[in-house]
Amino acid sequence: MKKLVTNAYILDMASDEPDIMHKDILIDGNRIVKIDNNIQDEYDEIIDAGGNIVMPGLINGHTHLAMNIFRNYLYDNKLINWLEDAIYPVEEKLDQDSIFWNSCISCIEMIKSGTTTCNDMYFGMNKTVEAIEKVGLRANVAWGMKNDSQIDKFDKTREYALRYNYPGSRINVLVSADSTYNCDVEMLKACKDLAQELHTGIHIHLPETLIEERKVKRLYNKSSVELLDSINAFEVPFVIANGLYLCDKDIEILKKMKGGIIHNPISNCKLSQDICDITKLKQNGINVGLGTDGIGRTRTLDLFEEMKMASYLQKIKTKNQKPIEPYEILKMATIDGAKVIGKSEEIGSIEVGKKADLIFIDSRKIHDATINNICSYILYTINGSDVDTAIIDGEVILRNKMIMSFDEEEARRNAISVIDRV
Amino acid sequence: MKKLVTNAYILDMASDEPDIMHKDILIDGNRIVKIDNNIQDEYDEIIDAGGNIVMPGLINGHTHLAMNIFRNYLYDNKLINWLEDAIYPVEEKLDQDSIFWNSCISCIEMIKSGTTTCNDMYFGMNKTVEAIEKVGLRANVAWGMKNDSQIDKFDKTREYALRYNYPGSRINVLVSADSTYNCDVEMLKACKDLAQELHTGIHIHLPETLIEERKVKRLYNKSSVELLDSINAFEVPFVIANGLYLCDKDIEILKKMKGGIIHNPISNCKLSQDICDITKLKQNGINVGLGTDGIGRTRTLDLFEEMKMASYLQKIKTKNQKPIEPYEILKMATIDGAKVIGKSEEIGSIEVGKKADLIFIDSRKIHDATINNICSYILYTINGSDVDTAIIDGEVILRNKMIMSFDEEEARRNAISVIDRV
Repeated sequence: MKKLVTNAYILDMASDEPDIMHKDILIDGNRIVKIDNNIQDEYDEIIDAGGNIVMPGLINGHTHLAMNIFRNYLYDNKLINWLEDAIYPVEEKLDQDSIFWNSCISCIEMIKSGTTTCNDMYFGMNKTVEAIEKVGLRANVAWGMKNDSQIDKFDKTREYALRYNYPGSRINVLVSADSTYNCDVEMLKACKDLAQELHTGIHIHLPETLIEERKVKRLYNKSSVELLDSINAFEVPFVIANGLYLCDKDIEILKKMKGGIIHNPISNCKLSQDICDITKLKQNGINVGLGTDGIGRTRTLDLFEEMKMASYLQKIKTKNQKPIEPYEILKMATIDGAKVIGKSEEIGSIEVGKKADLIFIDSRKIHDATINNICSYILYTINGSDVDTAIIDGEVILRNKMIMSFDEEEARRNAISVIDRV
Repeated sequence: MKKLVTNAYILDMASDEPDIMHKDILIDGNRIVKIDNNIQDEYDEIIDAGGNIVMPGLINGHTHLAMNIFRNYLYDNKLINWLEDAIYPVEEKLDQDSIFWNSCISCIEMIKSGTTTCNDMYFGMNKTVEAIEKVGLRANVAWGMKNDSQIDKFDKTREYALRYNYPGSRINVLVSADSTYNCDVEMLKACKDLAQELHTGIHIHLPETLIEERKVKRLYNKSSVELLDSINAFEVPFVIANGLYLCDKDIEILKKMKGGIIHNPISNCKLSQDICDITKLKQNGINVGLGTDGIGRTRTLDLFEEMKMASYLQKIKTKNQKPIEPYEILKMATIDGAKVIGKSEEIGSIEVGKKADLIFIDSRKIHDATINNICSYILYTINGSDVDTAIIDGEVILRNKMIMSFDEEEARRNAISVIDRV
């Protein structure tokens, strides 16, 4: 099945400087096979981009999809109070249906706002995987381990990794240790061993709040990063969500890490934490991607909002008007995010040979003034609601802002009935 | 002409605690005359709110409408460099057409994202007033005075104030001193005298950046607020844009002020300034509203984005997860903003006797989960693009997300041709 995307203004995110090309894109199956002017090859279907901007689908590097159920539930609280008073008691009641339908809603909201890949961590992931497959997202998934985790999560991780971690798979399985304050050293070692056995990476929350990081330091007389380094955990790739409160010594250790850090600016704000110094992390050559964290806290899965926040907050943090260029922020949501989650060979830019994960951005807002820097326009003026079309793995999943792969109304009805019940 | 709004979930913003009422609203001319269940009075037109949330139109307390022309132009810079290198040289070339069409675009973008009133300051305001009248916005307008201002701006202010400042007018005229660093004491006194003569208020930028505030202190050995107090300027009402770097003594002075402060969180971020301590200002009983500032800097006129930013930034500033309740943030964009700009007798809440300035918010996003706090939903999940309908002064200006009062495409075409020319 060959699809030809015509009339596209392509922002490919492939080079060091931004560039816009008015070219066609030929897709064969799930891959981009040609990018050129006026392609004359045979095709089965034509997709007119209507003069809109076509860029790589966005990559949400840290999510908890099933937590849609907690949206608006005992919001704006300290991390530990929010978890212990609001989240954990309800999590015990979550059944398979709850996880499936709420994961569906999250997948739909992400695709409608331009995200084509996410990196998810939670429990009951088998139903989240089912939702991801049905809606048609690309994803990494992981069963979050804590000290009280049953052996079952290790078995599930192994079972799903063996099933999904083949070359070219749309879904990949990582190992997940929840964090250093709720996983002891034995558990962290076991996670690292499992990741090595499965040739995959580890997804972890690492310093998210000051209280938790202090707890780790009191317990081990080491920072979280030093603790992981002391057990040689960084022999496997890491996706580190948050990366707050890192000292220079931590940064030295992380410079050698495979993977990188996912910055979640809205989630950090909502926990009233410091602003993560991603300017410094980037200057040290550490890959930095962007994430929304669970919708239970941040209330939106729109990565365009996270891009804006990342840019605004760095200006405050650094007292510099332009610490990170708009193009660099867009890279965090695309190619740099792909590097962090271990998928940059396949996605994150529009290039021949890569998977066909594309979004079309309605350019009417952009055309209403001079286009002297398209990236600053996308960053500061565009919202998720301006995304018109999303192609994932060569399939048109969103068209004219409508989900084509799934009955959105059915998902909403079921998610509401589940929420009412729980 | 009587209009009946039916099937509305009304968030009236009139009381201390949020409340949602499923009632009808009867509008006679430009005023709300009845709010009740199942109104049976005669009417000329029915407006079905379709089960959506109906709230007061938002109030943007600090704008420079004509600056749409500078959107994306030499963005992200120090205030003085941005003004002197980018803005002032082009401003000299701005003609009447430039100001008219760019003001039109700004009016349209505001209404489409739920703003029904703004408080504008710039030069060439006669053409901005024309745009505001034609598109159908409610506004305060003011000719910004600086030291080099010609006497002409005083004359224009007086002429327009005499024409527009009658009871019930949709447009009102304020006096504007640009700031304390570019208006000397004589100019500030002249502005105060003019405001007293015209029985109106003063719109001013007051500490916006640390550099400018330090300049004032060096010059007068007084803060900006102390300087104004020393000439008894606060005998007239003030709309103070920004309010950064205020000391306790300043706050003591401002507690007695009529009017208040307009917080522009995105604009402050883009100038890499400190976070304004609106939590403290509010605790001191000072009215605080919200603004976008000129689109030349902030790139969006969407007040929902400013509400989110105001909430996120206060959590960082105060290290408290809930320094200001969501309902209080919504008040800043409605009734509290109305108090700051001197219009709370007429707008800012949905009450019998007030002007009919209403917006309908598409509630599909809201219905997808439990409504246990509608205000936190509106604050954290809704964007300007979810606004479906806007009624201003009893007229339906936006319906099904389309501007009814003006040819939007014509405005865009003309704005683009003007930008290309300048």
